[in-house]
Amino acid sequence: MQLTVYLAGQIHDDWRQNLKDKALEKNLPVTFVGPMENHDRSDNIGEEILGKQPDNIIRDEAASQMNNLRTRVLMNQSDIVIALFGEKYKQWNSAMDAGAALATDKPLILVRPASLHHPLKELSEKAQVTVETADQALEALAYIFDEK
Amino acid sequence: MQLTVYLAGQIHDDWRQNLKDKALEKNLPVTFVGPMENHDRSDNIGEEILGKQPDNIIRDEAASQMNNLRTRVLMNQSDIVIALFGEKYKQWNSAMDAGAALATDKPLILVRPASLHHPLKELSEKAQVTVETADQALEALAYIFDEK
Amino acid sequence: MQLTVYLAGQIHDDWRQNLKDKALEKNLPVTFVGPMENHDRSDNIGEEILGKQPDNIIRDEAASQMNNLRTRVLMNQSDIVIALFGEKYKQWNSAMDAGAALATDKPLILVRPASLHHPLKELSEKAQVTVETADQALEALAYIFDEK
Amino acid sequence: MQLTVYLAGQIHDDWRQNLKDKALEKNLPVTFVGPMENHDRSDNIGEEILGKQPDNIIRDEAASQMNNLRTRVLMNQSDIVIALFGEKYKQWNSAMDAGAALATDKPLILVRPASLHHPLKELSEKAQVTVETADQALEALAYIFDEK
Amino acid sequence: MQLTVYLAGQIHDDWRQNLKDKALEKNLPVTFVGPMENHDRSDNIGEEILGKQPDNIIRDEAASQMNNLRTRVLMNQSDIVIALFGEKYKQWNSAMDAGAALATDKPLILVRPASLHHPLKELSEKAQVTVETADQALEALAYIFDEK
Amino acid sequence: MQLTVYLAGQIHDDWRQNLKDKALEKNLPVTFVGPMENHDRSDNIGEEILGKQPDNIIRDEAASQMNNLRTRVLMNQSDIVIALFGEKYKQWNSAMDAGAALATDKPLILVRPASLHHPLKELSEKAQVTVETADQALEALAYIFDEK
Amino acid sequence: MQLTVYLAGQIHDDWRQNLKDKALEKNLPVTFVGPMENHDRSDNIGEEILGKQPDNIIRDEAASQMNNLRTRVLMNQSDIVIALFGEKYKQWNSAMDAGAALATDKPLILVRPASLHHPLKELSEKAQVTVETADQALEALAYIFDEK
Amino acid sequence: MQLTVYLAGQIHDDWRQNLKDKALEKNLPVTFVGPMENHDRSDNIGEEILGKQPDNIIRDEAASQMNNLRTRVLMNQSDIVIALFGEKYKQWNSAMDAGAALATDKPLILVRPASLHHPLKELSEKAQVTVETADQALEALAYIFDEK
Repeated sequence: MQLTVYLAGQIHDDWRQNLKDKALEKNLPVTFVGPMENHDRSDNIGEEILGKQPDNIIRDEAASQMNNLRTRVLMNQSDIVIALFGEKYKQWNSAMDAGAALATDKPLILVRPASLHHPLKELSEKAQVTVETADQALEALAYIFDEK
Repeated sequence: MQLTVYLAGQIHDDWRQNLKDKALEKNLPVTFVGPMENHDRSDNIGEEILGKQPDNIIRDEAASQMNNLRTRVLMNQSDIVIALFGEKYKQWNSAMDAGAALATDKPLILVRPASLHHPLKELSEKAQVTVETADQALEALAYIFDEK
Repeated sequence: MQLTVYLAGQIHDDWRQNLKDKALEKNLPVTFVGPMENHDRSDNIGEEILGKQPDNIIRDEAASQMNNLRTRVLMNQSDIVIALFGEKYKQWNSAMDAGAALATDKPLILVRPASLHHPLKELSEKAQVTVETADQALEALAYIFDEK
Repeated sequence: MQLTVYLAGQIHDDWRQNLKDKALEKNLPVTFVGPMENHDRSDNIGEEILGKQPDNIIRDEAASQMNNLRTRVLMNQSDIVIALFGEKYKQWNSAMDAGAALATDKPLILVRPASLHHPLKELSEKAQVTVETADQALEALAYIFDEK
Repeated sequence: MQLTVYLAGQIHDDWRQNLKDKALEKNLPVTFVGPMENHDRSDNIGEEILGKQPDNIIRDEAASQMNNLRTRVLMNQSDIVIALFGEKYKQWNSAMDAGAALATDKPLILVRPASLHHPLKELSEKAQVTVETADQALEALAYIFDEK
Repeated sequence: MQLTVYLAGQIHDDWRQNLKDKALEKNLPVTFVGPMENHDRSDNIGEEILGKQPDNIIRDEAASQMNNLRTRVLMNQSDIVIALFGEKYKQWNSAMDAGAALATDKPLILVRPASLHHPLKELSEKAQVTVETADQALEALAYIFDEK
Repeated sequence: MQLTVYLAGQIHDDWRQNLKDKALEKNLPVTFVGPMENHDRSDNIGEEILGKQPDNIIRDEAASQMNNLRTRVLMNQSDIVIALFGEKYKQWNSAMDAGAALATDKPLILVRPASLHHPLKELSEKAQVTVETADQALEALAYIFDEK
Repeated sequence: MQLTVYLAGQIHDDWRQNLKDKALEKNLPVTFVGPMENHDRSDNIGEEILGKQPDNIIRDEAASQMNNLRTRVLMNQSDIVIALFGEKYKQWNSAMDAGAALATDKPLILVRPASLHHPLKELSEKAQVTVETADQALEALAYIFDEK
């Protein structure tokens, strides 16, 4: 049994790589997928494919199409979604992805610092599991495969 | 034909009442539903029903259960979701509700000021309609019923 | 907006009637449905319709068909399921109905005494709302319709 | 054709291992999955991952989240559910899992001693197959692959 | 609560009218729908609408389109399907409608004489209720609404 | 039983009004809905709601959002879709709406002149009913309600 | 791309083996599954697993459970259903399986002699493809993989 | 992760082969499927399998059955649909396939020359991505797999 896990959330630090490294150490049969982590490319992907756009609004729209294509295809392939929220960003995309995971009955693991407990209480109540660190999310994943 | 519309988004001003008043003026066959707008009651509803809770974490969890019950039932009854985002709040609940609407194929009308264009570009790309004011959202609703 | 609520759980006391009376007092736009509460008739309904059966096993099977027909039809019509567990009975039917409600994304309100907290912890974690008394369940229902 | 079978039910004896051994003998192309059978770890998994919790209620809640994550992911991967009921435990989780299997149209094989016929008659009527021993459940599984 | 019931099965005697009369006597809140019972019109409906067809094969195909339109629309509106089988006809349409009801999770009440027990045993095992007469089917329907 | 029928297809003549008039004559319990038939308003609706747009491309995009909102909401409310194709227009919207009706299991009645038989043969094979005139489509609708 | 095809229909001659042999000759990437073709074992499988049953009715019921388990599991795994009807048997099971395939949107290939055209006209109209021989069904299957 | 992509649209030039060649160059883990590109065979496939038909109408109907079988099976297997529209053909099949992709929530990439912007604006608004050339569609596909 091989599971696919979508890693939603901020793309500004290396939490995804840490998670992947630890999953490798533990030999978990898990494939991780997620959004484009190169922020500049993610903002520029519309023009990269379609050429120079007339203004920033249309440039953004073109980029959104490509990013949403990626997210939809990879989310469709996933068995579990992990969404990480931090204090710094608005992360509306992460909340939207979390909402989509919930609505399509994909188990959601919410990762957020204790300080964000209150504003995320409804999302947390809907998530299957809520933890405070990405390492704890990995342990929850590992538990699925444990026999003892 | 009577439609039900869920009004997701901030509960700190009277945009919902304005929308309802204008729909009434236009005689639209629409029933509006939405979250509890009394913010204190929304935060306190867990203890109101279950009695004093041991600490704030559990108090919040109890409140979330009641608020999510309300949202799920009313969203299930709705044909369209309008989600309004403003500059002031994080509004993760609104984004989660929007994600749920998208994932269950309920048409979503996104209302947000032009200034939020960039951070909401992916959500906007997925929404059926994006407008800048609640009044424009109402006109989009009205268009569904127009014959000429 | 008129909601239909299925009342799953033990049929040996008058908790359903109490709930209905209080909903009437509060003028809630709710229709309550549930299993046959006449226990003897519920056990005998197979023979009542099909005539005398060869033995008790077949008599039970015939009764189950009729009771399950009733449950399925009424659950299909419901927007919310309330399941009440008490200390006295095994209530496998209630747990099965709760599982069906969860799996078909109907919001579940679990009612159980604090003493049953541990054996029902997984069911509670999956329910939308967990309360200790039927009266609290009614207050949670009422909250859906409150505007202030 | 490789099938995945979820083994719901009591975790207090070795019925799962027996089933797996016999499937191996028969060379059935079946992967078996199921709940954590180490009862202490299952009760403690919340604290194992999240650290010491304030009280037993919250400890249980944390454990339930992890156990339900496991069940949901593994049930989603399964083609068939076998649920075994015995005389000794309340097994509300098993009944809930059985209800979920039924509601999501996964064929359910119910295993229960003849003595539990009456209280399980509605669940039995809904199950695809009802047998009295785990060995009989295995023979039913094997029949799916037989050509003659 | 008003239920709609589709009456599948032979159109060569007046069992549907009997059922409707008795439901009226009992004051059941049930609307009955079903196939065109005028056999000649059912065979001729293609030419009635489209005009004379080149040969019998095409005439039959045109009629089938109209009859299947009717069945699909009315089945979609139904909460329960009753399928009656008799000794005289092949009734492949009835079995196909029964299969569709089962696959779309509409509760099926199978009516067949005891003499057809063996050839219909698989269909019977899948039906929610199996009875021998249309009157018994009506009693099963009535039980859904009984309170005592 | 009241049915809702979506009328997809060209908006350049009065076929919809004819259909409605004849349904009224026959007293059919049918509500007809469809796209905005005022072609200029349909092309201009984006600017009507959002104000002057920078160029024609964006003007078209804004209009499409509003027209698609209307189509999705009204299609979701419909029990049957009638799609009329003529010789004059490309009607990609009609074919897209027909494809959506087919994929969501809404019975489709295709109306097209005999001259379009060949290019529409695949769509016709998927439709529930294919006729040559809107009047014939109405007769097919009427047949659903006939008792004799 | 490997497809799984369920072969529904009579089990009294060797049409399935012929089909499999020819698919092998053509090197089609297809796995065929189907009901138990050993008629005696199919009738006896209930007693084979559960032991001697009290009477023939219960014996049949036990056998039906096992046969339906097999059918459901294998149909769930299938991408296409081929159903063959002949003149000799009532084949209600085949019609029920065909109805289930149609209702779950699995493409159905109907095989029947021209002589059965009239009684099967509604089933034929719903099938994706209707042919007269199993060899023609195989050619239709093969066409899916052809590139030229 | 291996994705399957259905290539809908005109079969009169070699755009599919170009796409496949470039995907191979880029080493993308993608399997492409699509309609029969041999136009004569596609029109003749009904008679090829069923033998000479009485007239052209029936010949077309027989061919449509086979072509639609192919499309349905291959679309069911696909994760993404690319639909290419050109100026020369009516392409109702492509629009129908696009509508089916949209309605079943398969991400759609629309390829069309800028000159077709206006008549395809509603389809474009519903597509996940709209581009002008097949090469751009391939770049959008490639972006799904990029890590940087």
